[in-house]
Amino acid sequence: MAVYTDISEGELASFLDAYSIGTLLSYKGIAEGVENSNFLLHMSSGAYILTLYEKRVNPDDLPFFIGLMQHLSDKGINCPLPVQRKDGGTIGELAGRPAAVVTFLEGMWMRRPTVEHCREVGAALAAMHLAGQDFPLRRHNALSVGGWRPLWERAAARADEVQKGLAREVEADLALLEANWPTDLPQGVIHADLFPDNVFFLGQELSGLIDFYFACTDTLVYDLAICLNAWCFEKDNYSFNLTKGTALLSAYTAVRPISPAEARMLPLLAHGAALRFMLTRLYDWLNTPAGSLVVKKDPIEYLRRMRFHRQIRSASEYGLTMEGAPA
Amino acid sequence: MAVYTDISEGELASFLDAYSIGTLLSYKGIAEGVENSNFLLHMSSGAYILTLYEKRVNPDDLPFFIGLMQHLSDKGINCPLPVQRKDGGTIGELAGRPAAVVTFLEGMWMRRPTVEHCREVGAALAAMHLAGQDFPLRRHNALSVGGWRPLWERAAARADEVQKGLAREVEADLALLEANWPTDLPQGVIHADLFPDNVFFLGQELSGLIDFYFACTDTLVYDLAICLNAWCFEKDNYSFNLTKGTALLSAYTAVRPISPAEARMLPLLAHGAALRFMLTRLYDWLNTPAGSLVVKKDPIEYLRRMRFHRQIRSASEYGLTMEGAPA
Repeated sequence: MAVYTDISEGELASFLDAYSIGTLLSYKGIAEGVENSNFLLHMSSGAYILTLYEKRVNPDDLPFFIGLMQHLSDKGINCPLPVQRKDGGTIGELAGRPAAVVTFLEGMWMRRPTVEHCREVGAALAAMHLAGQDFPLRRHNALSVGGWRPLWERAAARADEVQKGLAREVEADLALLEANWPTDLPQGVIHADLFPDNVFFLGQELSGLIDFYFACTDTLVYDLAICLNAWCFEKDNYSFNLTKGTALLSAYTAVRPISPAEARMLPLLAHGAALRFMLTRLYDWLNTPAGSLVVKKDPIEYLRRMRFHRQIRSASEYGLTMEGAPA
Repeated sequence: MAVYTDISEGELASFLDAYSIGTLLSYKGIAEGVENSNFLLHMSSGAYILTLYEKRVNPDDLPFFIGLMQHLSDKGINCPLPVQRKDGGTIGELAGRPAAVVTFLEGMWMRRPTVEHCREVGAALAAMHLAGQDFPLRRHNALSVGGWRPLWERAAARADEVQKGLAREVEADLALLEANWPTDLPQGVIHADLFPDNVFFLGQELSGLIDFYFACTDTLVYDLAICLNAWCFEKDNYSFNLTKGTALLSAYTAVRPISPAEARMLPLLAHGAALRFMLTRLYDWLNTPAGSLVVKKDPIEYLRRMRFHRQIRSASEYGLTMEGAPA
């Protein structure tokens, strides 16, 4: 959670003069999102989110993120729609930071997702992948396999402070993943961070996807592997829930069927996804000052997932069924 | 700013089942208020604020706070209106904490109030004092003159770390204020914390008063003295703005005329109010861990105000005019 930048009513009102969304009624800094400062605006025309991009976001990436939300919205994906200014632009500046206004999506994220939620997110992910196929911009995934070793090297020396033996495990996994990572599977726009806090529901129905600030061009089924990690493990005992895995995978493949080659690589991709989140959590764990604004997430939760994926031999163990296709 | 407690959609929906305000569409933790956890709810019937009372609020005081908002609302004061449950109650429990739902007020607080805003707040404060006259509950002000010495004793030993000579100055002021503090001026419900962040405006018009969690029964004109401190000093050079003081005082007295005795005590009360905020800021300054969620406020800003008030001889120096009354 974070509001890093406060803004005055005067500067906000001036900024909003460039838009055609009515007059400002209220704005509240909201305690969600760790990367940027987000404000919920009530305008006379409705509710919006104002985002001020803080220093962890590269301004050069904004046209990709904003353009992607526009593109997906146009294709019928429920996601925040960037609001155009009167001059047609969508990225402005406020309090010395790049800033954008997007439509507000009603809905709640699920602290404890059920099987039904997993099914919904599987279908939505596949629909997003299909909708993104003709998005013309590209963005490199700095947090894919090529980015892990540099990140690891900045944390390795202190890794065993967090858990004895962690360094040895990570070294072995990194070598395995680097040697076997696929480069020839279907690519496209991936969300790359579709955790429960980025998916809204109204009742059992998925009402929208948010937070596209890790989105990039990468292997589509890697996004699915991230979701398996994010949605299908139990909070209490870290165990994989096969019912949730089956629901998520079957809903995904019903919308976007996957090839046998993609299915074959799923365990390795899921293993890599677990390592990726373990690494960023480990880095933050070691580098976030005590008592900071940011809630530290435990890297060990993802170490446990790494160990789980390491012993998976086939995507069917996650619940994937390949009707009519050789496994 | 603070959201200390997160809540799940499930427990929130169950909690809201007891109300008749429609279905939950979204809720966001908001980064305002340092004492409690506040969430902005979008319900199908409109917007509300849900407050979870954290440990600095005594649950025994809640009937006073909630009852006061209800009372003031009924009298036409724009303030949050506590929402009654189907069973008639207004205080429930959520995530192990006392919790209440109030109506959401549109409006923005002014980071840089103008003379016009000071005029509006003066009139609103007086209207609140009149509306509170027949409120039947009473609450002792633990942060009035009797509470300052115990607070000071917990900070005195380290006061000179913040500014050399501070301890000597505070001791002298405390003795002066304790010896001369008035007990015979008109009393009633005071807000006791009517700083700019607790007053909302839409354009130049005051749209509401919020945060009644320091409200208590005390000398009415002490509340006015707090507002002089909170609204009429310039941020940049700490100087008193006589135009703002005149606007605030004349708007107040136009709605609730003050007696010569009240006017005579205004400099001492303003001096005491400055000491009161200096003391709580000093205590927090010395006791808040570095990097904490709470933004520390500088006690020295209020030391400068103490020095200013010390040399005031008459309320006319704040801009008070007493038409037809002997000064």
